[in-house]
Amino acid sequence: MDGIHLLGEWYGCPAHTPEFTRAQALRAACLKATEEAGLTVVGESFHQFEPQGVTGTVLLAESHLAIHTWPEHGFVTVDVYVCNYQMDNNAKAEALFRALEKVLKPSRTKFHSIHRGGKNG
Amino acid sequence: MDGIHLLGEWYGCPAHTPEFTRAQALRAACLKATEEAGLTVVGESFHQFEPQGVTGTVLLAESHLAIHTWPEHGFVTVDVYVCNYQMDNNAKAEALFRALEKVLKPSRTKFHSIHRGGKNG
Repeated sequence: MDGIHLLGEWYGCPAHTPEFTRAQALRAACLKATEEAGLTVVGESFHQFEPQGVTGTVLLAESHLAIHTWPEHGFVTVDVYVCNYQMDNNAKAEALFRALEKVLKPSRTKFHSIHRGGKNG
Repeated sequence: MDGIHLLGEWYGCPAHTPEFTRAQALRAACLKATEEAGLTVVGESFHQFEPQGVTGTVLLAESHLAIHTWPEHGFVTVDVYVCNYQMDNNAKAEALFRALEKVLKPSRTKFHSIHRGGKNG
């Protein structure tokens, strides 16, 4: 089950962005970006922290998206993990990741990309 | 938002384990292990693939658990990500990870641990 896992840490995200603070807005942005990237949603769960901040995941036929926001610190972590069971989904994962980055507009980012699985473990 | 993300790839998991093939069993095992580790569930979503295989996530107050199974390949990927906002949750993350490993009984594993966030980015 060869796959790729993209991990982002985004700093300096603008505090007023609704997708940064409210679960409903972030959920809508995640579902839209997932569908536009050509990935397949099979479930989702988003939780609103009070007074602000969101944690959420979108289950994909290809694996998952997970996102956590800390508006008081301008900070977000994002994970996009796709397996390449029937086709190469790496470009779709990258498209989803970049679409969410455009929504949340970090001023500084850290990025890891990890290859997972594969025939040789 | 200092935190730790544990990533596992588990090979050679026994094919007959209900938690490996059925969403309901894996969901119950994940929720039990999360609570026993002292982490706080704020949401969850599990999806059953047919004829077998499961993808699921548990949203935590501390971040998330994500798990994907491919019974036809004896393969599982697991992610446990916790932030240490109000306290150090690293030991709880490790406990959750190890509890699920005991349920799914891989014969061979790969493991990454990634430090995320932190004051210096």
